[in-house]
Amino acid sequence: MVTGYTGKLLRVDLSSGRITEEPLNEDYAQAFIGGSGLASRYIYDMVTTSTDPLGAENPLIFITGPLTGTNAPCCGRFTVCARSPLTGFWGESNSGGIFGPNLKFAGYDGVIVTGSSPKPVYLEISEGKAGLRDASQLWGQDSYQTQVKIKEEIQEPKASIACIGIAGEKKSRIAAIINDHGRAAGRTGLGAVMGSKQLKAIAVSGNARPRLAAEESFTQAVREAYHILKNDMTAQMFRLGGTAIYTDIGMMYGDVPTRYYTQGDFDVSNLTGGAMEETILTDIVGCYRCPIACGRKIKLDKYGVSEADGPEYETIASLGTMLLIDDLPGIAYAGHLCNLYGLDTISTGATIAFAVYLFEKGGLSLADTDGVELKWGDIDTVIKLIEKIARREGFGSTLADGSLSLARRYKAEESAVHVKGLEVAMHDPRAFSGMAVTYATSPRGGCHLNSDFFFMEMGVEFPELGILSSPREQWTESSKERAQMAARHQDWRSIYDALVLCKFANLPASLITGLLNSATGWYTTPQELLKSGERIFNMKRLVNLKFGLKPEDDRLPSLLLEPLADGGAAGNVPDINLMLEEYYRFRGWNRTTGKLEKEKLQELGLDRLA
Amino acid sequence: MVTGYTGKLLRVDLSSGRITEEPLNEDYAQAFIGGSGLASRYIYDMVTTSTDPLGAENPLIFITGPLTGTNAPCCGRFTVCARSPLTGFWGESNSGGIFGPNLKFAGYDGVIVTGSSPKPVYLEISEGKAGLRDASQLWGQDSYQTQVKIKEEIQEPKASIACIGIAGEKKSRIAAIINDHGRAAGRTGLGAVMGSKQLKAIAVSGNARPRLAAEESFTQAVREAYHILKNDMTAQMFRLGGTAIYTDIGMMYGDVPTRYYTQGDFDVSNLTGGAMEETILTDIVGCYRCPIACGRKIKLDKYGVSEADGPEYETIASLGTMLLIDDLPGIAYAGHLCNLYGLDTISTGATIAFAVYLFEKGGLSLADTDGVELKWGDIDTVIKLIEKIARREGFGSTLADGSLSLARRYKAEESAVHVKGLEVAMHDPRAFSGMAVTYATSPRGGCHLNSDFFFMEMGVEFPELGILSSPREQWTESSKERAQMAARHQDWRSIYDALVLCKFANLPASLITGLLNSATGWYTTPQELLKSGERIFNMKRLVNLKFGLKPEDDRLPSLLLEPLADGGAAGNVPDINLMLEEYYRFRGWNRTTGKLEKEKLQELGLDRLA
Repeated sequence: MVTGYTGKLLRVDLSSGRITEEPLNEDYAQAFIGGSGLASRYIYDMVTTSTDPLGAENPLIFITGPLTGTNAPCCGRFTVCARSPLTGFWGESNSGGIFGPNLKFAGYDGVIVTGSSPKPVYLEISEGKAGLRDASQLWGQDSYQTQVKIKEEIQEPKASIACIGIAGEKKSRIAAIINDHGRAAGRTGLGAVMGSKQLKAIAVSGNARPRLAAEESFTQAVREAYHILKNDMTAQMFRLGGTAIYTDIGMMYGDVPTRYYTQGDFDVSNLTGGAMEETILTDIVGCYRCPIACGRKIKLDKYGVSEADGPEYETIASLGTMLLIDDLPGIAYAGHLCNLYGLDTISTGATIAFAVYLFEKGGLSLADTDGVELKWGDIDTVIKLIEKIARREGFGSTLADGSLSLARRYKAEESAVHVKGLEVAMHDPRAFSGMAVTYATSPRGGCHLNSDFFFMEMGVEFPELGILSSPREQWTESSKERAQMAARHQDWRSIYDALVLCKFANLPASLITGLLNSATGWYTTPQELLKSGERIFNMKRLVNLKFGLKPEDDRLPSLLLEPLADGGAAGNVPDINLMLEEYYRFRGWNRTTGKLEKEKLQELGLDRLA
Repeated sequence: MVTGYTGKLLRVDLSSGRITEEPLNEDYAQAFIGGSGLASRYIYDMVTTSTDPLGAENPLIFITGPLTGTNAPCCGRFTVCARSPLTGFWGESNSGGIFGPNLKFAGYDGVIVTGSSPKPVYLEISEGKAGLRDASQLWGQDSYQTQVKIKEEIQEPKASIACIGIAGEKKSRIAAIINDHGRAAGRTGLGAVMGSKQLKAIAVSGNARPRLAAEESFTQAVREAYHILKNDMTAQMFRLGGTAIYTDIGMMYGDVPTRYYTQGDFDVSNLTGGAMEETILTDIVGCYRCPIACGRKIKLDKYGVSEADGPEYETIASLGTMLLIDDLPGIAYAGHLCNLYGLDTISTGATIAFAVYLFEKGGLSLADTDGVELKWGDIDTVIKLIEKIARREGFGSTLADGSLSLARRYKAEESAVHVKGLEVAMHDPRAFSGMAVTYATSPRGGCHLNSDFFFMEMGVEFPELGILSSPREQWTESSKERAQMAARHQDWRSIYDALVLCKFANLPASLITGLLNSATGWYTTPQELLKSGERIFNMKRLVNLKFGLKPEDDRLPSLLLEPLADGGAAGNVPDINLMLEEYYRFRGWNRTTGKLEKEKLQELGLDRLA
């Protein structure tokens, strides 16, 4: 058996209640590594064009990678994949904490869930054994209550629980999966997939440890990686101020979406990492074996909350600047509610902001909003709307399915800021033009994580792999070279999502390769690994093509092609056409069909699939 | 003649009015490069133990380096050196803008001013010619008026003027030299040296250009350097938010001195680069050929100022947090007054903060302060005190000679935060322990620029030279390795001060060496250049030993050895003794005498001097 992995997958069919164990497909692992890479290969075989994302037939995979559960830094994450009920395309989301390591310690690399349970259940996996337990009493409980009660019931205080709140139960298409208190696999609505299967939670615990092929080399590489991260400036900044440290920096770049992407400048001095420290911060926390610890603990006296997870930058923007709100405790409380009910903060904030935008334009009226006036800068209404979304009450039920659904209902598709149905994340492509092409082409839609190209444009490059943000004069300049670099950056970040390695761990490619080789016993090189990244990225493309993806889905919403009047990105518009043309050519994709050209399929060893 | 330089120095004896030209000593240039390195070699020959810093005998040198005036990025600075009237030790300060390039364009690498004029004069250097002009009408004028009037008089609108305001005229020992609107050679009181010589200003202009030894290689290296800086994350951050972008980041590290170094935490959300952008910013500006442009232009409606230079981080801390003031326009106005009157903002703010500290402790009373109550958080009083310092009115006359003078007068030497008489800059050694040993040993005293080790501890390292902030676990941990790295970092930064290259230009050592070689025709290597840095650092030491330096002057003030109760550096105290012991050993300095050991003198080729 290849080391680094447990070598075992769990298959759970909720319709029949049958649970089986199967060996990890080592050929798949060699080609697709792990995490969402490996999941894309498994899912490809299990879906058709007509797979209903909320039907029993949609496979839901919880999966780790070859570094998960080892001592390597920043490898505490796990990934969830399925067909997305929000987009209808490839669904993928990963989350931190310690659920991922605990899944491995429980004896499995991953769990493939199919079918639909006749009644609410949760899955318990411990020490190589698995079973389904009744969750009727848990149905309707929030994500924090659920975690506490399951730990009590299974008598495993150290277990990790990944679960849904009421939003997932009610199949909100922007529902998240919550684990380890307030960590979230937020994007693409995978909480609704759990809800549709009546799977309230998965609990994992155990004492297994992944075997390592070359323990001494691995330990040495781990030591080097810790050393680098402890000295890395961006890592230190995130430790210092959380991801919120980016709020004012981002605003100066013009990168922080404001007033539903229509305003360039906004005073965010109340929303910075420093402001959080001065007001609501109680502690800093990290995922499993993370020397960065960007997580924050907070208290919200005004709302009677003694402990909550502090808002990330993405939450501060989506529930704050997007709505012209600069009330940090209010935003933090709104984020806390999203965690409790199991909602993706980005999609929730963006959908509410879109509703406010439509209301202002006259596209929504009081008759549509249950008589609630929607306006900018109104945190109280945002909080009320989150409650209604979670419960699918009135207008909340409309918002619960996200921006595109709202746009379709009110004939405002032209102004919804989404790609492939996923609300665009909190980095403006008018500030960093490379984001234009990565948003347009990310397998899951308007995603800032498949390629966090904004960081590359700020200077976080991968010179060993030739992934450079240059040649360029300005980060707002569109160019063919940038389109090529965006593709390579997506490929390399696809490896991060396969390992599963946090994207704040900007380690040299040779060191990452060394970690993987010494864990698994493989002999890959950084360049080969980058090629695997390209294979993985295109594997997800093949899944999306199966789901009916067309070239016109690789687009940028029109609102992001309107120049802003003010702020750090004023006047800029990315040349999305120039970059997309070059991107398609460089990727070996056919511009008319959106499909991979035959040569590219052969080059990547994917020709038998397509 | 060696290229890169003009090959000529100007000697001006103000007592006799005699102006002569002499060839640059090329042996000196090879060994000490330029800037303050070269100046230290010249000054060594011209001073004795008893040289009065405010006497005619104190030589005052304005000097450039071999890259000044070329197309190399971030080489717009020039350096002023003399015996410091504030410290009695080595005095050095550099400033940006375009005065340095203009001095070269006027035909000279530097100007050595001696003697004292019987009446106020200014020196005009243009196109290889120099003359003294009457400055009686300019005496008493502020630095901005002076610049405007001289440009009119000499009919050179593009000339650069370096001048003093009334603080320098009145020989305030914290007086600065101001050039190119509001750029300042602030530290060590060199404005008072100009004042003591009745030299109001130096005006430079011309069209000469430095010759390059290997123009093509130089151009290529320049292109690479621009490219790197445009992609460098810290450089981009400084462009984005000015140096004020560090205010809240620094506060989170516990690095921002607050309430005269006695408080660890303070809400600085009004004092960030982002806050400046939202309130008073009008434009961003850069020095000659600088792709970073950290400079800010502001307007201060409340104070009726339509254009001023925005406060740097150091000014925000010294005139802000040090005094518990978070009123950004007020701080900016106080900084603007310092520019007008020609005062160093760091020493001015620190001296006022020390007075407030003493007043609170009872060490100063209303009888001492002209009846003014000194308290924290009082910007109006700070503004009034700056006016009084500049005019040497009442209590202002006491403050005008800096913290140590104030401490001596009121028997409070134990609590004054200075090293060798220079007020410690705005980086707390309890946050970054490497700063403890660099403050203690910097040739000019409590200086954050001879080694900006805080940046190294944040991750800005020089791996090519083996200058690394590690091995370490935490930036607050003192260690022998850190003492060694601090010494090497000082050596390397001494090269920056010799070139003269801005310290925000974190370029690879090989590229800096390439720029120097292709400009001059030399064949040095990065390691040899680092050795030259060590020679320069020790040359300044030899000057200081001539001025009576003793090992006990290499110290850290006791207030900085008291742990803070709160903030990012709470509880930390650098182990200054451990680091100093190792530092002396590593430097080849005798612990008893403070002098260089014979072997070290020989190794550096300085044995004939000592």
